[in-house]
Amino acid sequence: MARMKAAVFLEPGRIVLEEKPVPEPGPLDALLRVTTTTICGTDIHILRGEYPVARGLTVGHEPVGVIEKLGSAVKGYREGQRVIAGAITPSGYSEASLAGCHAQDGPGTSHGWKPAGGWKFGNTIDGCQAEYVLVPDAMANLAPVPDGLDDEQVLMCPDIMSTGFSGAESGKIRIGDTVAVFAQGPIGLCATAGARLMGATTIIAVETVPERLSIAQRLGADHVVDFKRVDPVEEILRLTGGRGVDVAIEALGTQATFEAALRVLRPGGTLSSLGVYSSDLKIPLDAFAAGLGDHKIVTTLCPGGKERMRRLMNVIASDRLDLRPLVTHRFPLDRIEEAYELFAHQRDGVLKIAITP
Amino acid sequence: MARMKAAVFLEPGRIVLEEKPVPEPGPLDALLRVTTTTICGTDIHILRGEYPVARGLTVGHEPVGVIEKLGSAVKGYREGQRVIAGAITPSGYSEASLAGCHAQDGPGTSHGWKPAGGWKFGNTIDGCQAEYVLVPDAMANLAPVPDGLDDEQVLMCPDIMSTGFSGAESGKIRIGDTVAVFAQGPIGLCATAGARLMGATTIIAVETVPERLSIAQRLGADHVVDFKRVDPVEEILRLTGGRGVDVAIEALGTQATFEAALRVLRPGGTLSSLGVYSSDLKIPLDAFAAGLGDHKIVTTLCPGGKERMRRLMNVIASDRLDLRPLVTHRFPLDRIEEAYELFAHQRDGVLKIAITP
Amino acid sequence: MARMKAAVFLEPGRIVLEEKPVPEPGPLDALLRVTTTTICGTDIHILRGEYPVARGLTVGHEPVGVIEKLGSAVKGYREGQRVIAGAITPSGYSEASLAGCHAQDGPGTSHGWKPAGGWKFGNTIDGCQAEYVLVPDAMANLAPVPDGLDDEQVLMCPDIMSTGFSGAESGKIRIGDTVAVFAQGPIGLCATAGARLMGATTIIAVETVPERLSIAQRLGADHVVDFKRVDPVEEILRLTGGRGVDVAIEALGTQATFEAALRVLRPGGTLSSLGVYSSDLKIPLDAFAAGLGDHKIVTTLCPGGKERMRRLMNVIASDRLDLRPLVTHRFPLDRIEEAYELFAHQRDGVLKIAITP
Amino acid sequence: MARMKAAVFLEPGRIVLEEKPVPEPGPLDALLRVTTTTICGTDIHILRGEYPVARGLTVGHEPVGVIEKLGSAVKGYREGQRVIAGAITPSGYSEASLAGCHAQDGPGTSHGWKPAGGWKFGNTIDGCQAEYVLVPDAMANLAPVPDGLDDEQVLMCPDIMSTGFSGAESGKIRIGDTVAVFAQGPIGLCATAGARLMGATTIIAVETVPERLSIAQRLGADHVVDFKRVDPVEEILRLTGGRGVDVAIEALGTQATFEAALRVLRPGGTLSSLGVYSSDLKIPLDAFAAGLGDHKIVTTLCPGGKERMRRLMNVIASDRLDLRPLVTHRFPLDRIEEAYELFAHQRDGVLKIAITP
Repeated sequence: MARMKAAVFLEPGRIVLEEKPVPEPGPLDALLRVTTTTICGTDIHILRGEYPVARGLTVGHEPVGVIEKLGSAVKGYREGQRVIAGAITPSGYSEASLAGCHAQDGPGTSHGWKPAGGWKFGNTIDGCQAEYVLVPDAMANLAPVPDGLDDEQVLMCPDIMSTGFSGAESGKIRIGDTVAVFAQGPIGLCATAGARLMGATTIIAVETVPERLSIAQRLGADHVVDFKRVDPVEEILRLTGGRGVDVAIEALGTQATFEAALRVLRPGGTLSSLGVYSSDLKIPLDAFAAGLGDHKIVTTLCPGGKERMRRLMNVIASDRLDLRPLVTHRFPLDRIEEAYELFAHQRDGVLKIAITP
Repeated sequence: MARMKAAVFLEPGRIVLEEKPVPEPGPLDALLRVTTTTICGTDIHILRGEYPVARGLTVGHEPVGVIEKLGSAVKGYREGQRVIAGAITPSGYSEASLAGCHAQDGPGTSHGWKPAGGWKFGNTIDGCQAEYVLVPDAMANLAPVPDGLDDEQVLMCPDIMSTGFSGAESGKIRIGDTVAVFAQGPIGLCATAGARLMGATTIIAVETVPERLSIAQRLGADHVVDFKRVDPVEEILRLTGGRGVDVAIEALGTQATFEAALRVLRPGGTLSSLGVYSSDLKIPLDAFAAGLGDHKIVTTLCPGGKERMRRLMNVIASDRLDLRPLVTHRFPLDRIEEAYELFAHQRDGVLKIAITP
Repeated sequence: MARMKAAVFLEPGRIVLEEKPVPEPGPLDALLRVTTTTICGTDIHILRGEYPVARGLTVGHEPVGVIEKLGSAVKGYREGQRVIAGAITPSGYSEASLAGCHAQDGPGTSHGWKPAGGWKFGNTIDGCQAEYVLVPDAMANLAPVPDGLDDEQVLMCPDIMSTGFSGAESGKIRIGDTVAVFAQGPIGLCATAGARLMGATTIIAVETVPERLSIAQRLGADHVVDFKRVDPVEEILRLTGGRGVDVAIEALGTQATFEAALRVLRPGGTLSSLGVYSSDLKIPLDAFAAGLGDHKIVTTLCPGGKERMRRLMNVIASDRLDLRPLVTHRFPLDRIEEAYELFAHQRDGVLKIAITP
Repeated sequence: MARMKAAVFLEPGRIVLEEKPVPEPGPLDALLRVTTTTICGTDIHILRGEYPVARGLTVGHEPVGVIEKLGSAVKGYREGQRVIAGAITPSGYSEASLAGCHAQDGPGTSHGWKPAGGWKFGNTIDGCQAEYVLVPDAMANLAPVPDGLDDEQVLMCPDIMSTGFSGAESGKIRIGDTVAVFAQGPIGLCATAGARLMGATTIIAVETVPERLSIAQRLGADHVVDFKRVDPVEEILRLTGGRGVDVAIEALGTQATFEAALRVLRPGGTLSSLGVYSSDLKIPLDAFAAGLGDHKIVTTLCPGGKERMRRLMNVIASDRLDLRPLVTHRFPLDRIEEAYELFAHQRDGVLKIAITP
């Protein structure tokens, strides 16, 4: 039985490279040979034990690769094809998936729904920080990479770009909207880019790291607000003439950003939340207009599935956006433990690390 | 100068009947002779000083009446016409109003938005618990009562029915949805009726007052849950086979109902909030799936304007709904202080009181 | 090899009962033992050769049955379960299906879209007017029948009810809308019922057959218009005070009904078209306001998939609607040729015929 | 009584400069001193008598100007302010306007709707190819020009840009969509720009005039198709790998473009029609998939009102788009007859002519 290297969660604080058997695809699966992958902020939560996964699980949910072997019932693909799969791999046939809510896919439940059930890679099944990964429900999830795009060009599609864009999409941004984006890590930067792509005409990015503010401007921000130098709520209200923003995107997952996002909303506006929170949230009465402000608070988990991936790769292929600047570091899979160390401590201006098996 | 009687807020704890001059309509106003009005839960907040209004202000925001005099620039109406006006009286010309967000109308601001700015009657201008009331921006707000409908049939349109229905509408209820409605006061009952009208096929009403649960069943609830006898979250999850509800409507304004509404939502579901809250709200991390559940929280202030009123009166005129059972008591305006006393203490099974000047 | 009886298209004018082998399920299929099915107007188009299908194909697309055998990759069901499948059986994994456009599912195409590609039964694969039928992509399509519902109660779900309701849904009917439904055959009657369920408060049904007009009233029509006695356009404009309707549903497939539907629309209204047309359509310049009327014309093919079926069966199970009155005739499968004869000539007041193998 | 020059429709073939009294604002009006205006394709229809207006009417519906005098009931503005008003001037208070359908505003009708009723300037009231123009319902329609924008920068906002963008908006273009735009006159060019702004990633512009194709590319087209050199339907299907487009925008108003737009749509796609048609349209059966293709046909009349204008001017002010290249010619009002001559014959590569009183 062939064996492969894989980054495996052992216990809080330890993700290590181990040898495992190369898995065998079931009828609906595809086996992918991973050519590039990356580490996500969520993986750090897993590393720290803040987000529990089974011991021995291979982590990682952002695969770029080549089809090595197709399950017996999989049609429409051929071995050797270059593909990506989203971080979220919906079944296509659960009630949630059929209802269009692919990320809440619960194919194993009696009723077809499961909170965040579409997120399987590195969460409920082995992930892709490995030489090989099994893609479940392959026909719903394998998205061929357009000719001419290299691995790093599409590396953000499976998660970062899909999630960031969804912040703009769930906010239903319209031409002429004013939008604030709180936090400019990789997801917030993609939210900024998404807001720009959808026609927002005043985009205000909130961050404090100068390099991130600078990339935010390149990706579409009209104004940047350093929250350590000014109060971001006051500054945004000043920039908008007291009117507030049509849409505020939260891209960090803290009470401070959530609350500030609510405070800068105009009445009738939408708080589009992307962050993964780690404690209860408070909605201040005044910021919420006591419930009379026609406010909307919308959360979105990374949209997945091959149709989503196709659309995102089209954005790259059409030169609307280039996310390669987010790849600040590169490591072979053999040195992934070092990569975790760097990423977990956010050293050296790291944004995203390309990992190549 | 003609004088009239009006229920006036004097200080916390005191709303009294006083004499005031009959107001004179400005160019865009209409003077209405009030024939029936009612007291709202919000008026009790005002009475208690929990919601601040100016001393001397006439309270009340649910007018049925007859046009007494039209402002000089008002066209399309005639004196003597029977009309209602919504509790919310949008200008039609503010940015908010032109954007369709009539309740957040801010015609006096530089940017056209104001939280709850469309609510003027008995809040920022004199209200309708009086013999006469001025309707601002009359052409946007006067809605003729269809022939054959009496005052009590349309008395819930200006606020209770418009607000309750909006809970169902903002929840975007679809045919086949499962819906829970928390609290079955007048607004919750109208939310239940609205959910039924929009095609929800499993409607679960949560209350404890038996008369209200009984009316809920008449207005469309399939199941009633007495939260004093069973845990409503457990019971709703049981009734839905663990799936939860597509839409949960909050119609009270407390942490307990807000939180329960969130806990019974399926992933991807919508919490449609109608309550007027009086303290900060907490979003529990688990109920919110840490922000990964594709949840939506939507608040709605009573939609107003004459087009809204026309639609609601159509619902009554077409026999889809009869809200007269909500009128449990009747008082002349002269005895409105007694009516406040009864309503504030929720005595005698009161739901709504018709007040006739 | 077991054999079964099946109604097979031979040539224009001839659908006959033949013997065929009972099919063997592939990995993603399920074999259903059909307990009740019915004949659709579309089958008559096939019979007449107006809609071409392969010779030898088993016709029929409205199955109620029992799971006889599951494909090797199918999970979440058990043999012996009572289920229905929609007339449209999406794959769940094509681009169209993942985009929520299940009826235009093109799993065999390079790009995942095919006009009406989701309609497979009795069109591109063997249908269900037979003792057994193979359901493709079973996990996306098998919908368990709730306890307590008999075959005839759910017999309209696979097509008639799903299609009729979609006319109301695609029209985005709102509470208080005025709606006209042109033609009150089985689909038009379900469109009328769907309009009622979604909150339309003035529903005008256009037909000439008295029995159908009578059922239309029972299912929710407020007004019925006999187009042989009055001009329906004039009458509808009269009934709406010159305003026209918010939504007009076309449920026949002719120029006359299409054009009348357009002529009764208010500006900004929606023509929701369900009919299967058999010739080019004309849009009269005046009825279309020269393109300046903000009109929408929307066509919808029967929505399918198990989640759709679940919702529709909920409508029946919750007593919102009883469609058994549409079953005017019953025939055993052995006598299906007689049933075709009766249905094709619309004799004896036939609406729908239950066929039992 | 002061007098002014105005371009007046006399009879088919004759629009001439005449003297007229400067009008006096009613209570809801504002008198604007026009500083720049332009001639629209619609004006040419009027000139030719194809679109009937009253003899003696001042034509033109695209005003940039300065407030000269405010009606007695108008608040929130000051004389001397630089403003624009949309070609469509909704009342804000009709049923149509309150329902958000501002372009179909019928304030003078009993029911509040009128086809294209929001288009008043140069259609039902005197227009703005004059030294002064009355803006009706001024509070709903006067939009202050942001500091730093000159007349020609905002000259396209009242009609061309608002209409063109609405083609993209009504098509509900999403990130990653493929869009075809038929005809690249001023409106088609703005539709192309709008598609780009909303995130379409493959935009195909169809035209034959080389200068227009060249501007189309500058404004966002990825591909240009010269319909005189290739069959546009075949070419678009080729460019999209047989898939067709998600949204096709028709920006001319002919059977040929309408039909081609339908033929290139993928199933489930939207034909967004902007053209003003001058004869009946035909929908070919095959292109329409016999009504089974989930197609949508949506028409949109130029959205108006001050909130719309504010948003469009934000697009300009934020440097998202520069439409000054559309102004190919400039004439003083005194020579407007020459301008009409040039524009009517589309001489000299004309796109838009700035007219300065």
